[in-house]
Amino acid sequence: MYGYVGTMRTTPGNRDEVVKLLLSGADGLRSAGCHMYVVSVSESDLELIHVTEAWESKEQHDASLQLPETRAAIAKAMPLMTGEFTSQELTVVGGLGL
Amino acid sequence: MYGYVGTMRTTPGNRDEVVKLLLSGADGLRSAGCHMYVVSVSESDLELIHVTEAWESKEQHDASLQLPETRAAIAKAMPLMTGEFTSQELTVVGGLGL
Repeated sequence: MYGYVGTMRTTPGNRDEVVKLLLSGADGLRSAGCHMYVVSVSESDLELIHVTEAWESKEQHDASLQLPETRAAIAKAMPLMTGEFTSQELTVVGGLGL
Repeated sequence: MYGYVGTMRTTPGNRDEVVKLLLSGADGLRSAGCHMYVVSVSESDLELIHVTEAWESKEQHDASLQLPETRAAIAKAMPLMTGEFTSQELTVVGGLGL
């Protein structure tokens, strides 16, 4: 299983709006091959958003970025972000909640 | 919801054994207040294990470390590890799979 762990930084005051945008399409991702899509924030860094994902395959993850609703959410979020992203690709071995 | 993201480094050749130990108790964690406990590995760093967790509360997460089966797994894993750990506490806002 393909794992993706990433962070993104928003401009001050825009974190919650971007979180809302990220979560707005989450339910639709299961049919695209997503097993887990979790959005978290940090109490110590108020502009940082963490996303933890598990997908059936990297191909399905990458294809999801072309979904209309995903592209729409990204287009709305981009102006609220600094452009600072980190990402890490992992292999999900297993666990609870998948 | 309390989020915990951590990494641990094993000594060479011991990663899969430690992954097995971590996953051995995963199913029992739901009754302890765990919503997500995912173990991942990295293709680019063969001794590194990533753990991503979501718990009803920090207190329930911390208490789980005292569970007999968790303590037993940790005791078996420790000799296979270098002692290099990273951890980050987050607030899980929501998503798919929780």
